[in-house]
Amino acid sequence: MAYDQNNIFAKILRGEAPCFKVYEDDMTLSFMDVMPQAEGHTLVIPKYPAENIYDLDAEYAGAMAKTVKKIAAAVKLAFNAPGILVAQLNGAAAGQTVFHIHTHIIPRSQGIDLKLHAREIADFEELKKNAEKIRAAIQ
Amino acid sequence: MAYDQNNIFAKILRGEAPCFKVYEDDMTLSFMDVMPQAEGHTLVIPKYPAENIYDLDAEYAGAMAKTVKKIAAAVKLAFNAPGILVAQLNGAAAGQTVFHIHTHIIPRSQGIDLKLHAREIADFEELKKNAEKIRAAIQ
Repeated sequence: MAYDQNNIFAKILRGEAPCFKVYEDDMTLSFMDVMPQAEGHTLVIPKYPAENIYDLDAEYAGAMAKTVKKIAAAVKLAFNAPGILVAQLNGAAAGQTVFHIHTHIIPRSQGIDLKLHAREIADFEELKKNAEKIRAAIQ
Repeated sequence: MAYDQNNIFAKILRGEAPCFKVYEDDMTLSFMDVMPQAEGHTLVIPKYPAENIYDLDAEYAGAMAKTVKKIAAAVKLAFNAPGILVAQLNGAAAGQTVFHIHTHIIPRSQGIDLKLHAREIADFEELKKNAEKIRAAIQ
């Protein structure tokens, strides 16, 4: 499937859609998932038009990993999370719903058996506060 | 918690325990999960003594990402998998059971709601065959 330039994350990268930004560098962007599976659920995406891991440039894969490491530590600290799940879903059959590659960073306190499918949109004031908490915890 | 030099993945890295190897380079090793959550469930670990993502050297995080990309594509091809879940669990609260950082690569055909906890050991002949299939699919 060809990359869809109008997916929501492509729009966020072009500044055409808003996000609750946590972090940004030359190759990656991190922001709050607006349909969080847990408080503090954050995403990391590359500034590269790839639908999934197969299409992603290897240098961007490396850059994503470094940002994920940074943000996972910050989310853990900000939410005092005993566990952090890092997950990246490739294909609708794996639960992918937005077709720009993204890594989920999700605080966990009781194991892994959660669903990653989008459910409902969170309160925007809360997402904004959570983004601020995580930004303050980045080291 | 201090890194435990006697965890099973440390033993595999030292050659003191066997594994069904899929791929190896200077910084990473990939092998079959012996308690697979789906046929073709493969792991990638760094050759670096980190319990989790917080302790992992950033260069090794980048190296892991590149190997995960390579192996995810091979697993998809080898098992004709419509979806691939890439997951990395930090802390027992997130479902981590071996305390050397590792990334799961799991073929998926019907969404994400699976448990990642270890269940039962697979047939070794089958694991060996699956490792061979994946090795042959690496590009």
